[in-house]
Amino acid sequence: MAEKGLFIEQLQSGGVATLQALVKVKELRPKRNGGFYLRLLLGDRTGELEAKVWDSPQETGGLFEQDDIVKVRGTIETYNDKPQLIVQRIRRCESKEFEEADFCPVSKHDPDVMLSRLYGFAASVVDPCVRVLLQSILGDPEITEPLKVAPAAMRLHHPCRGGLVEHLVSICEAAEILVQKYSRLNRDWLIAGAILHDLGKIGELGTSRRLGYTTRGQLLGHIGIGLEILDKHWVRFPDFSLEVKTILQHLIISHHGEVGKGALRAPMFPEAIALHYLDEIDARLEQAWRTIDQTPASEAWTAYVPSLQRQLYCGPSRDDSATVPQAVEMST
Amino acid sequence: MAEKGLFIEQLQSGGVATLQALVKVKELRPKRNGGFYLRLLLGDRTGELEAKVWDSPQETGGLFEQDDIVKVRGTIETYNDKPQLIVQRIRRCESKEFEEADFCPVSKHDPDVMLSRLYGFAASVVDPCVRVLLQSILGDPEITEPLKVAPAAMRLHHPCRGGLVEHLVSICEAAEILVQKYSRLNRDWLIAGAILHDLGKIGELGTSRRLGYTTRGQLLGHIGIGLEILDKHWVRFPDFSLEVKTILQHLIISHHGEVGKGALRAPMFPEAIALHYLDEIDARLEQAWRTIDQTPASEAWTAYVPSLQRQLYCGPSRDDSATVPQAVEMST
Amino acid sequence: MAEKGLFIEQLQSGGVATLQALVKVKELRPKRNGGFYLRLLLGDRTGELEAKVWDSPQETGGLFEQDDIVKVRGTIETYNDKPQLIVQRIRRCESKEFEEADFCPVSKHDPDVMLSRLYGFAASVVDPCVRVLLQSILGDPEITEPLKVAPAAMRLHHPCRGGLVEHLVSICEAAEILVQKYSRLNRDWLIAGAILHDLGKIGELGTSRRLGYTTRGQLLGHIGIGLEILDKHWVRFPDFSLEVKTILQHLIISHHGEVGKGALRAPMFPEAIALHYLDEIDARLEQAWRTIDQTPASEAWTAYVPSLQRQLYCGPSRDDSATVPQAVEMST
Amino acid sequence: MAEKGLFIEQLQSGGVATLQALVKVKELRPKRNGGFYLRLLLGDRTGELEAKVWDSPQETGGLFEQDDIVKVRGTIETYNDKPQLIVQRIRRCESKEFEEADFCPVSKHDPDVMLSRLYGFAASVVDPCVRVLLQSILGDPEITEPLKVAPAAMRLHHPCRGGLVEHLVSICEAAEILVQKYSRLNRDWLIAGAILHDLGKIGELGTSRRLGYTTRGQLLGHIGIGLEILDKHWVRFPDFSLEVKTILQHLIISHHGEVGKGALRAPMFPEAIALHYLDEIDARLEQAWRTIDQTPASEAWTAYVPSLQRQLYCGPSRDDSATVPQAVEMST
Amino acid sequence: MAEKGLFIEQLQSGGVATLQALVKVKELRPKRNGGFYLRLLLGDRTGELEAKVWDSPQETGGLFEQDDIVKVRGTIETYNDKPQLIVQRIRRCESKEFEEADFCPVSKHDPDVMLSRLYGFAASVVDPCVRVLLQSILGDPEITEPLKVAPAAMRLHHPCRGGLVEHLVSICEAAEILVQKYSRLNRDWLIAGAILHDLGKIGELGTSRRLGYTTRGQLLGHIGIGLEILDKHWVRFPDFSLEVKTILQHLIISHHGEVGKGALRAPMFPEAIALHYLDEIDARLEQAWRTIDQTPASEAWTAYVPSLQRQLYCGPSRDDSATVPQAVEMST
Amino acid sequence: MAEKGLFIEQLQSGGVATLQALVKVKELRPKRNGGFYLRLLLGDRTGELEAKVWDSPQETGGLFEQDDIVKVRGTIETYNDKPQLIVQRIRRCESKEFEEADFCPVSKHDPDVMLSRLYGFAASVVDPCVRVLLQSILGDPEITEPLKVAPAAMRLHHPCRGGLVEHLVSICEAAEILVQKYSRLNRDWLIAGAILHDLGKIGELGTSRRLGYTTRGQLLGHIGIGLEILDKHWVRFPDFSLEVKTILQHLIISHHGEVGKGALRAPMFPEAIALHYLDEIDARLEQAWRTIDQTPASEAWTAYVPSLQRQLYCGPSRDDSATVPQAVEMST
Repeated sequence: MAEKGLFIEQLQSGGVATLQALVKVKELRPKRNGGFYLRLLLGDRTGELEAKVWDSPQETGGLFEQDDIVKVRGTIETYNDKPQLIVQRIRRCESKEFEEADFCPVSKHDPDVMLSRLYGFAASVVDPCVRVLLQSILGDPEITEPLKVAPAAMRLHHPCRGGLVEHLVSICEAAEILVQKYSRLNRDWLIAGAILHDLGKIGELGTSRRLGYTTRGQLLGHIGIGLEILDKHWVRFPDFSLEVKTILQHLIISHHGEVGKGALRAPMFPEAIALHYLDEIDARLEQAWRTIDQTPASEAWTAYVPSLQRQLYCGPSRDDSATVPQAVEMST
Repeated sequence: MAEKGLFIEQLQSGGVATLQALVKVKELRPKRNGGFYLRLLLGDRTGELEAKVWDSPQETGGLFEQDDIVKVRGTIETYNDKPQLIVQRIRRCESKEFEEADFCPVSKHDPDVMLSRLYGFAASVVDPCVRVLLQSILGDPEITEPLKVAPAAMRLHHPCRGGLVEHLVSICEAAEILVQKYSRLNRDWLIAGAILHDLGKIGELGTSRRLGYTTRGQLLGHIGIGLEILDKHWVRFPDFSLEVKTILQHLIISHHGEVGKGALRAPMFPEAIALHYLDEIDARLEQAWRTIDQTPASEAWTAYVPSLQRQLYCGPSRDDSATVPQAVEMST
Repeated sequence: MAEKGLFIEQLQSGGVATLQALVKVKELRPKRNGGFYLRLLLGDRTGELEAKVWDSPQETGGLFEQDDIVKVRGTIETYNDKPQLIVQRIRRCESKEFEEADFCPVSKHDPDVMLSRLYGFAASVVDPCVRVLLQSILGDPEITEPLKVAPAAMRLHHPCRGGLVEHLVSICEAAEILVQKYSRLNRDWLIAGAILHDLGKIGELGTSRRLGYTTRGQLLGHIGIGLEILDKHWVRFPDFSLEVKTILQHLIISHHGEVGKGALRAPMFPEAIALHYLDEIDARLEQAWRTIDQTPASEAWTAYVPSLQRQLYCGPSRDDSATVPQAVEMST
Repeated sequence: MAEKGLFIEQLQSGGVATLQALVKVKELRPKRNGGFYLRLLLGDRTGELEAKVWDSPQETGGLFEQDDIVKVRGTIETYNDKPQLIVQRIRRCESKEFEEADFCPVSKHDPDVMLSRLYGFAASVVDPCVRVLLQSILGDPEITEPLKVAPAAMRLHHPCRGGLVEHLVSICEAAEILVQKYSRLNRDWLIAGAILHDLGKIGELGTSRRLGYTTRGQLLGHIGIGLEILDKHWVRFPDFSLEVKTILQHLIISHHGEVGKGALRAPMFPEAIALHYLDEIDARLEQAWRTIDQTPASEAWTAYVPSLQRQLYCGPSRDDSATVPQAVEMST
Repeated sequence: MAEKGLFIEQLQSGGVATLQALVKVKELRPKRNGGFYLRLLLGDRTGELEAKVWDSPQETGGLFEQDDIVKVRGTIETYNDKPQLIVQRIRRCESKEFEEADFCPVSKHDPDVMLSRLYGFAASVVDPCVRVLLQSILGDPEITEPLKVAPAAMRLHHPCRGGLVEHLVSICEAAEILVQKYSRLNRDWLIAGAILHDLGKIGELGTSRRLGYTTRGQLLGHIGIGLEILDKHWVRFPDFSLEVKTILQHLIISHHGEVGKGALRAPMFPEAIALHYLDEIDARLEQAWRTIDQTPASEAWTAYVPSLQRQLYCGPSRDDSATVPQAVEMST
Repeated sequence: MAEKGLFIEQLQSGGVATLQALVKVKELRPKRNGGFYLRLLLGDRTGELEAKVWDSPQETGGLFEQDDIVKVRGTIETYNDKPQLIVQRIRRCESKEFEEADFCPVSKHDPDVMLSRLYGFAASVVDPCVRVLLQSILGDPEITEPLKVAPAAMRLHHPCRGGLVEHLVSICEAAEILVQKYSRLNRDWLIAGAILHDLGKIGELGTSRRLGYTTRGQLLGHIGIGLEILDKHWVRFPDFSLEVKTILQHLIISHHGEVGKGALRAPMFPEAIALHYLDEIDARLEQAWRTIDQTPASEAWTAYVPSLQRQLYCGPSRDDSATVPQAVEMST
């Protein structure tokens, strides 16, 4: 079981502390008088902490990698008006030893459950070509391992570990119900688009516990990487219809809806149009409710949301507790 | 039963013809040598026909109004290289005598059925205030009579008689299923928004068999007229919460999604966001399929769609008949 | 007469102070050891001050409301490096006891005078229908009471108490002179538009001494609220021409000039076109001169104005005093 | 006095005709069998007419220039289904022999009167530097001769011979009344801006009876040419303040209001802001009323106006005659 | 040698004609009384011609394909006021029998020469990985065969058979000289970008003699197809650096310069920035000179160019012949 | 030789210091007890320093001007937590006494060399009219003196003393090589455009060591000022072709490429199109490499560049030193 120890915001100067932390930066730095020391930037969900390893820095540095969770013990000093940890002991933690959510935002949904639901949707595809291709992709550990932890975005929507697979499943579900109403939609294409459209984010945003763009992600975007993933598996099926491949490629490159919003092509057939809106609905509602939930219950309006260029309304009478003070009668 | 008689495209010069037609223009015009004649522009779904009434033009003109369906008999002459009808007899037809679809595009759905489904959605609203308001609006013949015939647009989507109520019902259905998945959405608000958001189109596009904007429609748009309809019924309920009225008003004014696309405000809470996308999905899919269905089966692409600034892809292997010539073997 | 007492920027820690202040926030908060205290945020035109009422917080809190001006006496302590007032006595001030301008920006023009000039313009309208409608609106205390204090904007133009009515009168005056030159303009419509176009700001920006948007204002904008005001009074005149009502509605919804700038419709007749430009001239000139006047006389350029996306030029040789140092002869 | 003779639309094939016409194109063309003939394109306000001179084409062509008004006599033949004039006699007309308005749209205002009013405004400027500069410009026949005939635009506003000077005077008048209300405006600058801002159109649109851009006009625009005119006269006054020259230059280059609409700079001081809106009001109102006046009285809406991206509303009950047929009673 | 025979614009009704023509459309159509006939649409650079094969339509249709050049003999009849060819004999022509340029616009440069220059640029790349990859691509007949005939665009620039390879070579040359001046540019990347950036046009615009988009081209664009080509060859080199692949991919997806202009990413390093501008210069200059050359020498301005939203200036004194008539002296 | 003395960032409180510094602000200020003191803001490339002269402020202030380099000696005190220099001795430095680059960013190229290369390009122009005009402009000390020190921009590209002339020469060089490839380009026009297009920046950005806009620069921009420079010299050549003047004016006003990006006209002939792209390439590459060079070698990406709305990629394996720590072996 997880033993977080102290959270960084609880640390006080002058004592010895033991805690689990995320290694955000790890670098060997030259000492003034020769030799090296190991500089670490540690973090958890409550803040960041500078740390230094003076003894055996190279050996110590070999015990763990950036982005690992470590258990660390040391003394808290003050340096430049900020607390700093002088490390005495440090070791890498196994995944069963800690709670992911102590260190970075984490999806509420179990990524393995999400992934198996995604398999389920892939398996439900009727067209055998499309189905087998999707199963090939979702059977590739180079896809599924990062997919378990990738976020769907840095800030906009599902910005948490496991957020991407949660988003993909959610769009599959929405596609499922949309097809009930608009039965002329090709369900196979829509499910395939729901699974594939954002898959490139595993390479764009990566798997780091610190959410952020990779170099490939910045240079190619998830659309460019998504096409690459599709191509990698498509070559395994020499008989795959080029026509259907083109449909799948178009679903990927058009899902942003407009050329000015990052699509390479505007959606040109009904399933591509529908996929774009399903993606928008799922992303915007998740973003709206998350933003509202982060707003104090006493506020009727969220903070300004730059990506939406507006504030959001939290709705009437949301704050039950807020009415308590008003229930305290005030004499006139 | 309907007795259309000849269609306009079948008329040939030189004989006597009897047919039903829509009166598109009716005007008294001065004759060169004094007095007046009645000039008519008649139409059906196959074309237009000039017609003239030389005898008793005023009495005759009093028998029917512009936009009526008439039964007319006369001789076909040629004038300025075009056929022209010299009217001998003309009278107004009752609605049971003709098929609406012979004269203008008509929704495939019975407007009375559509309307009763809209009542059903209104009745399903849980919040009694919202429900009663919706029922008041849908109980007002000044709303429901035009609603039975109004189109949802001139060209973009559901551009046919009865298209508006078909569109409203369709969005209610879509709202219904969306709430299943995103259960945090307030179903009452979403249903109310689905019913109210485009209701102003009864005043914007009017009830004429010739689709077109009214003067009020051009000057106010359906958002301005929709607010007016809401206000007209809201004053009947003095205790109606101003907060909820504001929610409903916002759903109306924000449903175009962006200020640059005709919204007075961007959608500022989840239900308003969802309503915008539901409206888009329903309109764009109807438009896409209708455009595809109007494209010859031998074509893979529709004509250019100005409002979408693109052509649409009709999909692979749509044309069964098109493959016939290829099935005819050609020797090498 | 007004007795402001000390201004907040003059307060010094450690003594007893008596002053008038605006109540910006008033809330009961739980004490650590049970019970409540009253937390206040006070303000005047020189700054803000935290204040606490430890004794009889509920009774005391019942003596005044947020946004009131109070007379308060207490001791100044330091808390978190900032001064804090421990309240001993506090009471609500009557409007005759204080100068509005000590607490928030105030129009230089007497709102009662402004309002009576607006009545004058309404009375000068020739079309009896339009005139009576305007008089009905300007005779409604629910309109005129807030109109006396509402600002025309939070920052852009006339951002002060009474700024809205000042702006409306100014546009009426400008309309008057424009009609002299362009005599084909319908003066009645232009005056009606000048009075009505921004009237919704009484509900958008409200009457608070702290300038800011109301929830209704954010959700509906002053155009939405303005339509509502028009409707409320229009129903009182059953014979009012729908055509003229439509003209007035269009003047309100089109006065922002372009759909991309918040108009529901672009101006579609000459009076609507003229109203838009009169509004722009009045707002932009007020904004320009106010911004220039806030710029130190030694500067030729104002600070960057975000809403205009530029700096403004204060003009040549504005600073007489600035030349003084240059008059002091400097030896070579 | 003017003797127009027949108008082009009245010509009938087969006879001899005498008429005045504008020479739109004049070119020598080789005959099949050697030698040349003179090909003319003639025009008046009713249409265009091809004409040919077979005899002495070179001598005849030397008698007049393109853009002249000529009196021509010849026989009307039919060539390629269109009438064609075989010229027998042709000569240039003096300006007193014809009515300008028979050949191209002409301002209703006498250009000499307009020009003298412009002098009056220039003379009313108080700052002697600015006044003398304006008088120098308006005293230059290279300016005033074309100014008497130049249009203000090809289509948008004042698109007629003499339209430019009419527009400049109109803005001076509007500036005059605006200064009454906003007395802080520098009247001298505003009058100077009103006179100078569009003066470059004498070089942009030229003086041809056929409205159209010159090559310089296309390459430089009226802003570029306007700066050149200012510079040409400014060098005559070595003591002219560079500061004031800069003000005048800025008024010219900023009068389009926004960089995206052709301004080199956005208006950066109050007079430049005011000039932009005065220009807009004058141009848009002239355009609106002219467009409305060209609309049949029976229509409530003008044709679509591309530059405004909308139709304009002609207003209620404009058509008195239109009600006549309705006054003719129709029996039921 | 080529024997074009008559051009279509020379055909006259009523006789027998022999000519070479491009088969634009070929389809079997049912005859009214059973059986089929073969309908052809033929074309050459002077026009189009309907043609019908009544005898042995299936066998005849098997002799050639759409987009082939055929030699055809038949009689010219008139049908619906247009000439129509009743085919007697028809056969496919070999490429040596005809001149490509008689049937569609063709690059002035020999595609084989162009292609070998492209090989030369590929061979000059220093980085062995990049060089080998480019050589692999340019050694693939699936690339080079279409590359010999593909246009660079339908209308904008190099819109002719062989135009694409001409454009690629031209950018390589421009890259070569740019590197001389900006020596810090990585020549290898720039040459690779010059070769790869538009290569997808072989799939977007295809190889048809009738310029036009393919279905894949519309759905994926040349950027999507270009990425696919790169991927296809990249998999052949397992040791190829992923970093360098990413560079090449970015060069392809960013070469349109801005997201709003069809780039998936804006150019993010100097070579990508340079490639974008080299592409623009080459395309815009070719387009400008071609447009100018298509303008009659007597005109100073080209027709309006929609893609540039302007006319182009042909420059001063371009028309030597135009001055001839002026040299013919005209008497006064 | 230059004797900078201490740099401002090296100064320590409490001692006496001697240093060279740039006078950023110089103003006489009243002392509390009467009389004046001289307040200075000094700077060098490492920071800024407040300074005060208590003795003989007027005489001292007459010894140098704002923007001069001075040698100053005084004591360092602390005032408001910042160091402050109490001046004992101060005098103006001659240009040979200091290194420009110690005080502000300076081009790496000698401005006299740059200028002579610009003369060389002007002299190479073949058209004698254009050549003489360019030589007149480059022979005018009012042009060349500021040209030696003017920057090409405040931040975007070549933002350093002498940056403008460096940029102009660079574009001339690029024009030279472009003409080699696109030989149809008129070299004379292109060289003239390269020299003239940005020349107005000598008046827009001025010659101050503190980079910044002048008032004329803000009001007219470098395009407005550039036209003025051209006009000033053009009047010296009465026979200069108006056609060629127009070409040169168009090159100046169109070089920003699009009206929305500050061009008065879009480029309308090939040389204007080419000049725009040459300007873009030179500016964007300089900006990109400078930004990359300012980025720590350990970073793969630059900071966000607002004017480009993106980060730039520094490329793979740029940081040799960065690999050192990785070379230090870490034990597992």
